[in-house]
Amino acid sequence: NVLSVFACGTGLWNMYGRYTQELGVYAKEEAARLRESGQRRSVSRTLDLLEYDKGRCAKCRICTVRCQKFLISRVGEDWIFLILLGLLMALVSWVMDFCIAICLQAQKWMYGGLDSNVFLQYLAWVTYPVVLITFSAGFTQILAPQAVGSGIPEMKTILRGVVLKEYLTFKTFVAKVIGLTCALGSGMPLGKEGPFVHIASLCAALLSKFMSLFGGIYENESRNIEMLAAACAVGVGCCFAAPIGGVLFSIEVTSTFFAVRNYWRGFFAATFSAFIFRVLAVWNRDEETITALFKTSFRLDFPFDLQELPAFAVIGIANGFGGALFVYLNRLIVQFMRKQKAINRFLMKKRLLYPALVTLLISTLTFPPGFGQFMAGKLTQKESLVTLLDNRTWAKQGIAEEFDYIGHSEAWKHPQVNVFVTLVLFIVMKFWMSALATTIPVPCGAFMPVFVIGAAFGRLVGESMAAWFPDGIHTDGTIYPIVPGGYAVVGAAALSGAVTHTVSTAVIVFELTGQISHILPVMIAVILANAVAQSLQPSLYDSIIRIKKLPYLPELGWGHHEKYNIRVEDIMVRDVRYITLNCSYRDLHNVLLTGHLKTLALVESTESMILLGSIERAQLQALLSLQLGRPRRLAYIRERAVEDKKRLSVVSNDSSENSSHRASQEVRFQVRGHSGQRCKKCFQPFKAHYFQSHRKKCLQNVTAEFCMSSKITEWEEKQLDEQVNFNNCKIDPAPFQLVERTSLHKTHTIFSLLGLDHAFVTSIGRLIGVVSLKELRKAIEGSVTVKGAKVRPPLASFRDSGTSSSENEATELHKLWDRHKSMPLPREHTPSESDEKSQ
Amino acid sequence: NVLSVFACGTGLWNMYGRYTQELGVYAKEEAARLRESGQRRSVSRTLDLLEYDKGRCAKCRICTVRCQKFLISRVGEDWIFLILLGLLMALVSWVMDFCIAICLQAQKWMYGGLDSNVFLQYLAWVTYPVVLITFSAGFTQILAPQAVGSGIPEMKTILRGVVLKEYLTFKTFVAKVIGLTCALGSGMPLGKEGPFVHIASLCAALLSKFMSLFGGIYENESRNIEMLAAACAVGVGCCFAAPIGGVLFSIEVTSTFFAVRNYWRGFFAATFSAFIFRVLAVWNRDEETITALFKTSFRLDFPFDLQELPAFAVIGIANGFGGALFVYLNRLIVQFMRKQKAINRFLMKKRLLYPALVTLLISTLTFPPGFGQFMAGKLTQKESLVTLLDNRTWAKQGIAEEFDYIGHSEAWKHPQVNVFVTLVLFIVMKFWMSALATTIPVPCGAFMPVFVIGAAFGRLVGESMAAWFPDGIHTDGTIYPIVPGGYAVVGAAALSGAVTHTVSTAVIVFELTGQISHILPVMIAVILANAVAQSLQPSLYDSIIRIKKLPYLPELGWGHHEKYNIRVEDIMVRDVRYITLNCSYRDLHNVLLTGHLKTLALVESTESMILLGSIERAQLQALLSLQLGRPRRLAYIRERAVEDKKRLSVVSNDSSENSSHRASQEVRFQVRGHSGQRCKKCFQPFKAHYFQSHRKKCLQNVTAEFCMSSKITEWEEKQLDEQVNFNNCKIDPAPFQLVERTSLHKTHTIFSLLGLDHAFVTSIGRLIGVVSLKELRKAIEGSVTVKGAKVRPPLASFRDSGTSSSENEATELHKLWDRHKSMPLPREHTPSESDEKSQ
Repeated sequence: NVLSVFACGTGLWNMYGRYTQELGVYAKEEAARLRESGQRRSVSRTLDLLEYDKGRCAKCRICTVRCQKFLISRVGEDWIFLILLGLLMALVSWVMDFCIAICLQAQKWMYGGLDSNVFLQYLAWVTYPVVLITFSAGFTQILAPQAVGSGIPEMKTILRGVVLKEYLTFKTFVAKVIGLTCALGSGMPLGKEGPFVHIASLCAALLSKFMSLFGGIYENESRNIEMLAAACAVGVGCCFAAPIGGVLFSIEVTSTFFAVRNYWRGFFAATFSAFIFRVLAVWNRDEETITALFKTSFRLDFPFDLQELPAFAVIGIANGFGGALFVYLNRLIVQFMRKQKAINRFLMKKRLLYPALVTLLISTLTFPPGFGQFMAGKLTQKESLVTLLDNRTWAKQGIAEEFDYIGHSEAWKHPQVNVFVTLVLFIVMKFWMSALATTIPVPCGAFMPVFVIGAAFGRLVGESMAAWFPDGIHTDGTIYPIVPGGYAVVGAAALSGAVTHTVSTAVIVFELTGQISHILPVMIAVILANAVAQSLQPSLYDSIIRIKKLPYLPELGWGHHEKYNIRVEDIMVRDVRYITLNCSYRDLHNVLLTGHLKTLALVESTESMILLGSIERAQLQALLSLQLGRPRRLAYIRERAVEDKKRLSVVSNDSSENSSHRASQEVRFQVRGHSGQRCKKCFQPFKAHYFQSHRKKCLQNVTAEFCMSSKITEWEEKQLDEQVNFNNCKIDPAPFQLVERTSLHKTHTIFSLLGLDHAFVTSIGRLIGVVSLKELRKAIEGSVTVKGAKVRPPLASFRDSGTSSSENEATELHKLWDRHKSMPLPREHTPSESDEKSQ
Repeated sequence: NVLSVFACGTGLWNMYGRYTQELGVYAKEEAARLRESGQRRSVSRTLDLLEYDKGRCAKCRICTVRCQKFLISRVGEDWIFLILLGLLMALVSWVMDFCIAICLQAQKWMYGGLDSNVFLQYLAWVTYPVVLITFSAGFTQILAPQAVGSGIPEMKTILRGVVLKEYLTFKTFVAKVIGLTCALGSGMPLGKEGPFVHIASLCAALLSKFMSLFGGIYENESRNIEMLAAACAVGVGCCFAAPIGGVLFSIEVTSTFFAVRNYWRGFFAATFSAFIFRVLAVWNRDEETITALFKTSFRLDFPFDLQELPAFAVIGIANGFGGALFVYLNRLIVQFMRKQKAINRFLMKKRLLYPALVTLLISTLTFPPGFGQFMAGKLTQKESLVTLLDNRTWAKQGIAEEFDYIGHSEAWKHPQVNVFVTLVLFIVMKFWMSALATTIPVPCGAFMPVFVIGAAFGRLVGESMAAWFPDGIHTDGTIYPIVPGGYAVVGAAALSGAVTHTVSTAVIVFELTGQISHILPVMIAVILANAVAQSLQPSLYDSIIRIKKLPYLPELGWGHHEKYNIRVEDIMVRDVRYITLNCSYRDLHNVLLTGHLKTLALVESTESMILLGSIERAQLQALLSLQLGRPRRLAYIRERAVEDKKRLSVVSNDSSENSSHRASQEVRFQVRGHSGQRCKKCFQPFKAHYFQSHRKKCLQNVTAEFCMSSKITEWEEKQLDEQVNFNNCKIDPAPFQLVERTSLHKTHTIFSLLGLDHAFVTSIGRLIGVVSLKELRKAIEGSVTVKGAKVRPPLASFRDSGTSSSENEATELHKLWDRHKSMPLPREHTPSESDEKSQ
């Protein structure tokens, strides 16, 4: 029973990632420690040497060395890292805003300069964004396709513990920054906030690498994850100058479980970043002092009446439906584009055609002298938001009020058309435009467009209320007219909260506007919007995660009683690939050919099934290649050759043939060695299916080659029949185990807490099954297999709560599994395989 | 190797509590499920029956039954629970505020009515609070001593997974509510926020019990913890009408790891609660509409100048030191009172003397015609806060300004004394008064007093700035005078943040004042204050946790590199109490006598040491008592009696003696059975040491009794030598295991994530040690054992970072442990025992 293993304990709990990385991290850590201690030793040795040298200069040098030591140790501090990150991101954000403003000004200038000819004006209005978007799409495509989209879904996956390596490189950083600047400079309804989360994370990853050149402690995996979590907060914080909202939003959007100790990091970095971002604006003479980005000035003494609350609630509920519709529309467009194979093939060939066409359509519709005049088309996103949050009332009794529409507000006023019609048109057009624009393959977010639409909807309700109650609702005493700007604030928070499934948009709204007087209406609307939207659709980010097929774990809703009734034994896969302690290399080979899990269970014997530990696939492959690999082959051939020589020393005419045979074999071995190296590709985290088949091919090649030389084959057969020697193999002696009656709720909690990827199910130490993210996901999403195509949203609590149908489903699931159990299926692998195909 | 166990899998991961409870929960869950399904069956049966009955009435009744079914299912929903909780807490908060206001008014009325005679006035001023505080202390002491203090430390411990059962009972609720009302009504510098967290949790626990009468799903342990987390948010939310700040504050104060899905619950309940709380004020005609509790009206266009930021930073740093000093002072007073044995003995006899004396001292000093006139003594806490946040400037060029001090502001103006002197006196006096008052054994918090002191300090700095720059700092163009009220806001947030070690006080401040314009100064000051305070002292709540010796796990600081270098093998206890599969009852008995862990490891054999599972102490005790218990004894005696009768049927004169002997033995057994029942006390979670000795005594009694009858002893000896039969014993087949090289950082994360209490350390399946919270705590707090009495604060990153001393400490610790390892100590238990004594 005693098993000699290489003690590699650090990787036991794959807290934030898989075992493979942990090992790497451990090795790196050790190396860093050695390096560091070496450094220290050399420093102290220098000191010792200097102590003997009693000149004046020596003291100075001691001092210098001490300072150097002090600085190096300081560099390792988190807060220096966070300050640098905040500073860097503030600069990036400010410079980007500056460039975007210049781009937008350029468009306005061109459009304004050509006012003699409408056609030329149109051409200028349309060409400019088309060129910018096409450039952005092309640039991103060429440099780093990973930079496309908002990046929040990817960050969520990375913080979940999955490694998407290409997503945190310098190339991606450059592509994202430049692509985003161009995309936003085009004036399309796109946002900056999602990409900024990604950019901040990129910044953190790069900065971390850079600082590890000095310190040596920036190598720890879990520390990096903590830094990434802080970076997400910085991203939102410096984008909106909203430190608190940024921290909360990033937590809500990226985490399932949150360590409160990271909270403080996030606050620190985000505050510093927001501070620098706004100070830059003051230094640039844009602002007189540090204020909010979209400062409002509603009255403080009586922000709203109690009787206006139903209107706010209506905004919340309507925006909940609107948010769900937006997510649905966005997904529909993507799926439509994918399904239409003819279009798809054409577009894939001309990759830049789709962005150009979409941009052309949208910019044509917003052309101010054309249809744009009915939807305030000439305003940029920022300008429309500023006007929507204005604290004056635009309409009274349905007629546009006769105050002077200063500045941009005049865009909303049309001589023939009522301001209500303009608002409705704005909302409807911008709604589908935003949903469409966010599918363009450029770096872009959807938060800001949604925010503006929500503000417009709020404004619409507010203006209607103001028209309905021109003297306000308050009955006794003073007249407090209704403030439609307050409604706009509520609407903006509600719609963006509904789309992203977050409550912290409320805080972002307060920080953006610099006023918190509408706190209760905003909170009520956001919560109602969330309740409605969560019951209808997943959040935008989860929707993208599903579209992109990133590995994820759905959330458990509230009030799902059945989660406590389903047990792990109901959902686990009973057909586990395992290896026994006394297995032969042939068994190993067979297991590697059939299985697809990244780690394999090691059991005592097939009879006892006592789980001893788990071994990584790579380790086993290494074992196999060690047994059948080149050195041993060469040794064998050399041995045989010596034997042959001894035997055939008389028959000398055969020797040349033999040597040529040997040479040809060596060549083949080299080729094989090469293909063996290529097999490392097999362990990349993604496109597992593709690589699966690739790997199979590789191994088939190997087996095919086996047949070429019968003697070699014979040798190989002999080698394969030998018992495996696990002596130098890294075994995880305590893989994650659950017992068979653990509830689904608890399993989910453990998986998301520890960032697990799979867990073995044991009964009194005996392995009886395995649960991976996939099974868990299926079980949580309910009855995908039972009821066919119906995909249940993760938080569909409002839809099916109260009825006992869900519980019936659960029992049906039970029955199904029980049937599975009783049925003498040879291997239950079929469903999962078909699932793999469908993915 | 096959081991038949009672499958009790749910308890495998003691997620939020100990294994014992989980089992209870599992049983309850099962019962609830059965009950529920029974209910449903009966309902459906009724429906079936009714379907046959074809009258009109039947339809109605079907409808009624359906409605009933629907309602019952709805009651199970979380959101109904949260709404009820919010409503209840808002009512409690409002009613309490109302009573407190009446109490304070009564004092003012008495004081005002007696203005003819200063002595009578003094008597009235002093007697009133003394009576109230004494009543509060006495009432709490008699009804539920658990209600004393803020309750946040206890809630933190409960949410950590430890069960403090008496803390969530109806008695405690009543004691806390009434005690708190009286304490706050006395006008002492006490707060309402901490106790409100406790009250909300009490409310949630009671409501949960109440609703389980209908639903049946309110029994799940982890669900209850989730609800308690939401309740904490409600507590803060409805105390300050600050939903967002409430949620964040409760997270920061009570959690280490936070599930984002609870976040939403907290927001929902806290918002609803805050809404109702403020609506009640509107209905009571206190307010015209829903506004902030301490509404400010600073100018919006230019809240502060960039050049004022250093002053804000100074406030932050100074308040950081102040916060640390407050915590230190508070602890010092408590420890002083405990150490002075003479005083202590006297005070323990007259328990109400201490509160009365403290109240007398404080109220004497604040007597308005006396010393109180120099420190605005006649203002209540609320009034002083309102005046401090006033947006007018009190002083110009050092001379009190000549505007009319309306309302309460005049209290700050003294004909002879400068306003600065008044402010300084106020700060100094209130500082020690608050630190002293919070040690009174009544339900009280420290947040509000600290908040007021912070505001006063901010005001002081603000007034100084206003006197220094009478025309404001801004150089070009418009004159923007300095707003000292803004400084007060910053100071309040910074000091309360420093004392509680939270950042979310910033959010609370915005919600309390209804203005967010000072967001960046507030954030900067809060973060600086936190940085300073965390490096000097633990938070007030952690300090109380240590004083009260509640089980806790300190936080890991940031930038502690050594945490990655210490491994579990360095800190684990190598001398593990275990039982083997083939052990005798005697071994069991011995193990139970010596060990103190709540669960014991079950290994295959002493040679192999392969960990098979863990068994609770209670289970083992049950096994032992089953083997030596009354039924088997009686059976044995009866058997022997039959034998005796057979043998001694001739010698009939002996029979009477024999029967009397039997009777006396039966009596003794009953006594023993009784004492056995009393032994259940041994399993209470606290005062383990005391009960340890108690248990020893019990068992010694048992052993003493053994000697009384030699035959019984012989029988018992025989019984003890038998091999243990684990057939009906509940064995946890997968207790939490770590491998020996897991880093301290990772261990800490796992312990706090999963709420563990201990974990076994294994090496290739073989048990080599055990780590419990205690070892972990010692290792994190650094060198308590190595360096003697020095207790290091948990986040002392600023103090010792940069120097390599901490790393030296780590290596010293390493060495120490290595020495321990190499030294042939018979049992390494001595350090932990001595530690137990010192506690």
